[in-house]
Amino acid sequence: MSNGVNGDHHGPEPDQAELSRSEGELFLSEAFKIIVEEAVHKATDVKEKVCEWKDPEELRALMDLELGEHGESQQQLLKRVRDVAKYSVKTNHPRFFNQLFSGVDYHALTGRLLTETLNTSQYTYEVAPVFVLMEDVVLRKLRSLVGWSEGDGIFCPGGSVSNMYAMNIARYWAFPQVKTQGLWAVPRLAVFTSQESHYSMKKSAAFLGIGTENIYHVKVDESGRMIPEDLEAKIVHAKSQDAVPFFVNATAGTTVQGAFDPLNRIADISERNGMWMHVDAAWGGSVLFSKKHKHLLTGLERANSFTWNPHKMLMAGLQCSVILMRDTTNLLMRCHCANATYLFQQDKFYDMSLDTGDKSVQCGRKVDCLKLWLMWKAIGSQGLANRVDTAFANTRYFVEELKKREGFQLVSEVAPLIKERMVKKGSMMVGYQPLDSRVNFFRMVILSPQLTHSDLDFFLNETERLGEDL
Amino acid sequence: MSNGVNGDHHGPEPDQAELSRSEGELFLSEAFKIIVEEAVHKATDVKEKVCEWKDPEELRALMDLELGEHGESQQQLLKRVRDVAKYSVKTNHPRFFNQLFSGVDYHALTGRLLTETLNTSQYTYEVAPVFVLMEDVVLRKLRSLVGWSEGDGIFCPGGSVSNMYAMNIARYWAFPQVKTQGLWAVPRLAVFTSQESHYSMKKSAAFLGIGTENIYHVKVDESGRMIPEDLEAKIVHAKSQDAVPFFVNATAGTTVQGAFDPLNRIADISERNGMWMHVDAAWGGSVLFSKKHKHLLTGLERANSFTWNPHKMLMAGLQCSVILMRDTTNLLMRCHCANATYLFQQDKFYDMSLDTGDKSVQCGRKVDCLKLWLMWKAIGSQGLANRVDTAFANTRYFVEELKKREGFQLVSEVAPLIKERMVKKGSMMVGYQPLDSRVNFFRMVILSPQLTHSDLDFFLNETERLGEDL
Repeated sequence: MSNGVNGDHHGPEPDQAELSRSEGELFLSEAFKIIVEEAVHKATDVKEKVCEWKDPEELRALMDLELGEHGESQQQLLKRVRDVAKYSVKTNHPRFFNQLFSGVDYHALTGRLLTETLNTSQYTYEVAPVFVLMEDVVLRKLRSLVGWSEGDGIFCPGGSVSNMYAMNIARYWAFPQVKTQGLWAVPRLAVFTSQESHYSMKKSAAFLGIGTENIYHVKVDESGRMIPEDLEAKIVHAKSQDAVPFFVNATAGTTVQGAFDPLNRIADISERNGMWMHVDAAWGGSVLFSKKHKHLLTGLERANSFTWNPHKMLMAGLQCSVILMRDTTNLLMRCHCANATYLFQQDKFYDMSLDTGDKSVQCGRKVDCLKLWLMWKAIGSQGLANRVDTAFANTRYFVEELKKREGFQLVSEVAPLIKERMVKKGSMMVGYQPLDSRVNFFRMVILSPQLTHSDLDFFLNETERLGEDL
Repeated sequence: MSNGVNGDHHGPEPDQAELSRSEGELFLSEAFKIIVEEAVHKATDVKEKVCEWKDPEELRALMDLELGEHGESQQQLLKRVRDVAKYSVKTNHPRFFNQLFSGVDYHALTGRLLTETLNTSQYTYEVAPVFVLMEDVVLRKLRSLVGWSEGDGIFCPGGSVSNMYAMNIARYWAFPQVKTQGLWAVPRLAVFTSQESHYSMKKSAAFLGIGTENIYHVKVDESGRMIPEDLEAKIVHAKSQDAVPFFVNATAGTTVQGAFDPLNRIADISERNGMWMHVDAAWGGSVLFSKKHKHLLTGLERANSFTWNPHKMLMAGLQCSVILMRDTTNLLMRCHCANATYLFQQDKFYDMSLDTGDKSVQCGRKVDCLKLWLMWKAIGSQGLANRVDTAFANTRYFVEELKKREGFQLVSEVAPLIKERMVKKGSMMVGYQPLDSRVNFFRMVILSPQLTHSDLDFFLNETERLGEDL
């Protein structure tokens, strides 16, 4: 290696040699300083931009993305680290409202850095002893919040996959022969979910071979909640078409309006019809921590399974998603296992029930529990509850302030234009979308406890400023 | 916040307050020092243990994993960071041979740390401008290695999911109505893969609703390579049972023996039968970088798709897996899209073909390209080629040394016992498994360029020592 990190020596051309341990550690520590400066310190500074907008062509040129035969100097690579940070969107920024994640939790981030450095896969106790036990503790604790003293679960790469797991497990529970013989061995299956549910239901039905047309979309009320009477009607309709209703997906916190479906009513209907009830609580699950708002999830304890993404409202960092199940019959393992002998040997010297990897449809699986665990250790269940309560309080504040301003109904008709202006200016980021017959409107996502009233006021003022002439 | 990171002030009890920015950054930098010391510096020191074995009960108690109402002091949390590292397996260690990943690449690790800190999701140009362009460049470059000037692809959470994508895309290609109407609308489908192929084929067939019994397992020769004549026979057999052959999976680098299926012969048969040919090159794909060993993949250019995991032989870090496709008809998008209006608005102010998220069956998707890109920038294609060549050279050295030692045939019969001893001692880690009628044997995985001959000699000597009395 001829190019030291800080040295001014430049060889005739950068080489391809492997870094020594000390060179590697030096690079890591230099890079880490840049990462903290650009992607933490500046990225959380309200005076800095949320994004440094560049058109694709301009950015492509700026970043010099193409890959070549030869390596580069360590100095040049450090500059690249800085550039990647500089031109990336600062989702840690207080004025990033664009997705259902935002803000930064320093302990969770530490957990993520440690996870990446340890670089292991969560399939056996042998290679991930700490994380196998930790995942078990975290899942158990999450289940206890809904009152389940037993059960099962697993971390998945995102909420869509967690929902997909639920649909597959429900299918196996209803018709175990599907695993070996495929769907040809069973009658046509019917899935029920609301019109406002997440698009992962469609993706799941397509991927699992069930087909999107075998989803029956249940109507919602004005607030976006599933109408139980329509669920019953749709079930009757499906049966009349010789389809077998096996799976209801209720949503706790819809993607656009944040609505909570009436879980007890849906549970009644599911039970009467012998169906698996799943709740997509990817967004709303975190409400379980709050004594004040937990009532929104009344009835969740009657579900067979639910999805919960602590990377959303709790800020654990991407990705942190679980499916939790009430089942005590090892359904998850039975549904997914393939019993690979090279990995899940049955003659090991420890309790092989700790080799949980065969519960997953993945082989290698990232460790997703550490970031949540360390954050939880840091602020406790009470700290997490505070976070949820703060988000609700901030939302109330925002709604009251919004009501005071006359122009905001009009704004919605010009959302795409205002969006373009805010992104190019880099002052904030928020998403917009249409809903039924309504035109495009902004979806304001409030979750981070780092948000102040001043950030929320800024949002209102800035939106007015950006739309002034429209 | 009453507990400073370094302060000796202890409040009456740890609180649940949010860290300020400066407290957060202080914690991060203190934690990072520990991470580098424990999970990098010591973890790559050949004089340190590969693992600090503890029985599950002992480890559970040591780690104090349970989660409570209240938070902890920053000092206590830093100790937890150290403990997690201490009791985790050091996959970065030169004597970790247990899985198809090992060693550490400092640039790739830097890419992972930056990815985690930026905490974004790879679905739209809007939230991931740098990474959308970067993924495109990396995928294009990977395709160019197999001679494809056009095509498609995407990063997936692991090789099993990449393989699953292939099977689903092939199905959609053959019978697009499956997406909407499900498998009931098409004849029974048949999948072909060798007996030695990865278990993700089984998981895929089960998950996609095709069923494991609709996999036809093709015989392999002594080296573990698929026998083309048997593939032909199995296709005839499937047709005679009224199943429709639509998908052949060839393997380039089998999991246990590292065998490469004869791709040209398999391509001939696939073409003749109008089938989609996929190659699971999760392990072997990296050979494409090596002028010397690339011939192992002759015929890969005729496949419709292949899986490649740069987190294996190239050491990009978990997870880094791609599916690459020859298709130029936007099949990937058409097969997986759900057109969610809240995310993939069609009235944006930039080229919306850059919103690639709908190609995935996930919604949120981790950024997996940066670690590979930064590593590639650091050592160039030549550096990556060197890495592959070094692994092959080390393997040859190891085999020659092995042949000189008489006891090693016998050793295989006592693999589980030797494994227990090595793990409890923490001196090294290697996996074992049976194969057909053969008893348990060790699977020695050689990949990291940081491996020296002395590490390989150590393996042989240590195995002898551990098995001396058996």
